[in-house]
Amino acid sequence: MFLTVMTVAEALTALSPVRRSAVVHVAPALGIVPARDVCAAEELPAYARATVDGYAVRAADTYAASESVPALLELTGAVAIGRAPDGDVGPGAAMGIPTGGLLPHGADAVAMVEHTTEPMPGHVELVRPLAPGDGVLQAGEEARAGEVLAPAGRPLRAADLGLLAAAGVTEVGARARPRVGIVSTGDEVVPAATAPLEPGRVRDACGPALAGLVREAGGEPVLHGIVPDDAAALERALAASVAEDDVVVVSAGSSVGARDLTATVVARLGEVVCHGLALRPGKPTLLADCGGVPLIGLPGNPRSALVVFRLVGMPLVRAVGGVTDPPPAPSVRARLARDVPSAAGRLDVVQASVADDVATPLFGSSALLGPMVRADGWFCVPEADTGLAEGTTVRVDLYA
Amino acid sequence: MFLTVMTVAEALTALSPVRRSAVVHVAPALGIVPARDVCAAEELPAYARATVDGYAVRAADTYAASESVPALLELTGAVAIGRAPDGDVGPGAAMGIPTGGLLPHGADAVAMVEHTTEPMPGHVELVRPLAPGDGVLQAGEEARAGEVLAPAGRPLRAADLGLLAAAGVTEVGARARPRVGIVSTGDEVVPAATAPLEPGRVRDACGPALAGLVREAGGEPVLHGIVPDDAAALERALAASVAEDDVVVVSAGSSVGARDLTATVVARLGEVVCHGLALRPGKPTLLADCGGVPLIGLPGNPRSALVVFRLVGMPLVRAVGGVTDPPPAPSVRARLARDVPSAAGRLDVVQASVADDVATPLFGSSALLGPMVRADGWFCVPEADTGLAEGTTVRVDLYA
Repeated sequence: MFLTVMTVAEALTALSPVRRSAVVHVAPALGIVPARDVCAAEELPAYARATVDGYAVRAADTYAASESVPALLELTGAVAIGRAPDGDVGPGAAMGIPTGGLLPHGADAVAMVEHTTEPMPGHVELVRPLAPGDGVLQAGEEARAGEVLAPAGRPLRAADLGLLAAAGVTEVGARARPRVGIVSTGDEVVPAATAPLEPGRVRDACGPALAGLVREAGGEPVLHGIVPDDAAALERALAASVAEDDVVVVSAGSSVGARDLTATVVARLGEVVCHGLALRPGKPTLLADCGGVPLIGLPGNPRSALVVFRLVGMPLVRAVGGVTDPPPAPSVRARLARDVPSAAGRLDVVQASVADDVATPLFGSSALLGPMVRADGWFCVPEADTGLAEGTTVRVDLYA
Repeated sequence: MFLTVMTVAEALTALSPVRRSAVVHVAPALGIVPARDVCAAEELPAYARATVDGYAVRAADTYAASESVPALLELTGAVAIGRAPDGDVGPGAAMGIPTGGLLPHGADAVAMVEHTTEPMPGHVELVRPLAPGDGVLQAGEEARAGEVLAPAGRPLRAADLGLLAAAGVTEVGARARPRVGIVSTGDEVVPAATAPLEPGRVRDACGPALAGLVREAGGEPVLHGIVPDDAAALERALAASVAEDDVVVVSAGSSVGARDLTATVVARLGEVVCHGLALRPGKPTLLADCGGVPLIGLPGNPRSALVVFRLVGMPLVRAVGGVTDPPPAPSVRARLARDVPSAAGRLDVVQASVADDVATPLFGSSALLGPMVRADGWFCVPEADTGLAEGTTVRVDLYA
């Protein structure tokens, strides 16, 4: 059998999913991915508003105003918040106005109350000149009609929710959360709720952990349970997931026998893209394309499985969910506390704790989750490198 | 009236909430905050297991093994995955074992199949010496009984979900999501679903945006609707929120009149801690302690309100939710594309887009949400600085 080994970058290109999840119409919420640009139906704000407490005036009436020669204007009324002004501002006139008040017709600027006095009833003096637009938020300054409020492909953030609400957008066309089928396999694997364990059994750690990563990537995990090491049972489970889900993830098992079984079954359901990744941990990864549905056969060790899913699975889930503009990956730069050996030709993913700009690598068997649980993040030793020396600055990608 | 202005750091110290949300028993999930350390009830793994495919042996039988003089051992059986071995490994003996198989009694190492041959039926030859523990994951190597699996105060991540599942933990004592009451105020403010707008009205942008930030901080937003600029109505709404919620947030309004109204009402419900923050945008912020419930009176401008809530509100929500070990704040270091002016004595929060390690400040009236919507993150000009020069390296905190 010809075994293809790819780099992570090659795998992401080879598997690039053509499918996108369905468009649904939902209320704007954190992480929702607009399927197309959400545009303003009208100017925002619809009317010019005051941005300070003071007096709505014509700027031309204030050009010569100074502390020594103030401009004296006639006070012809006041604007109430939330109401249309009951009057215009003519030449030589002023109206009181609170922050947020609608600018009355005729006025083109608002004098801050701090720069005015009311020397006698019915009049106001301005001690500073104003330019048109001073103290005013213009109609359409936040958005013109038709302008993009929230671009397609970028998950909505809190500020987006505010802008969409301001524009009266209460529903957006968005990508449904990608359904990610998770199939755990292995005669030794039992559900987490099993107590006590029979000798030789292990509880399914991968399923719940993968479900967490799927949610982080904006997907909806669909746990298909635990399938024994039996070709017919595995084929039924995987075929069902391929038929229903947008992405399929299966633990390919730790032993050579379990991996061979998975590879044989997957080859019947689609085209195997590669049998391994130039990655540590995570080499025994099987990738396949099942009629447009990416299938990821993960290593049996939970830590290896989580490393592979973070590097290969999460970008796929985001892509299927229509994310074209993902949020920047959180990271810090830190100096290595010790030498890190590596072999050329493979990408090493090293767990690390970070304190005071120093990254301390956390090693241990890839059968252990502990190093990942104790880590703040991870860094990579690139394929071309044979190791990194103590003191080298690395980018540590942080766990959320 | 004596007006107290505090720095953000002083405000966080002054408001430090004593209350914690209730402890509930829930299934482990992303972001759940354990109320106390979650410990292993038993050794994990419970039995020593093979980490490679090969043969379970006594290491002492292999000390002299080499390519030229292999160690010849008698093959006495094979371990099936998921089952207790049906036999022990005696001196001079070996049993076949798959990765993950339970190490049989008597064996203390596993020889990789790649380093063996089966020269005749019933026998196996080893060409490399083994030390005790080679190819074995020891019982208790992931966790000893009583060892901390997930510490109190750190939100659960995907890897934690895996480790807890492996340990059979299906329920944890965790802090309930803090209830954060959100009261929008203003005679001009109408719900987002209002169309068309009457002149002078604006839709409530703050409520939905704050709800998003509350969720980001692990809280449960409770939207109490929009209250008019009326002391009795505002006092009823705030008193109800103080009675029910863990943190109360109210938009204090943009105009001096609206802010004074809020300050008067809040003073009746608790102790006002400060009337302003040395912060831009966000100066007109009112903070109070209402019998242990922190109350935040936010500026009326949505962008100012979101800046204040991110700096002051989110840490409070996390603290009430029992988070003592928050995930590291995502950030990047970038060089400023232009000079940024500032006034000494106040913290300036500047929105910025980041590309190729260059941060471009995004300015505009604090009445506009746009600069925040277009930003990748924000950076601070500290209280002591009077500005930052083009080319200065700043830490840009990223929006998720």
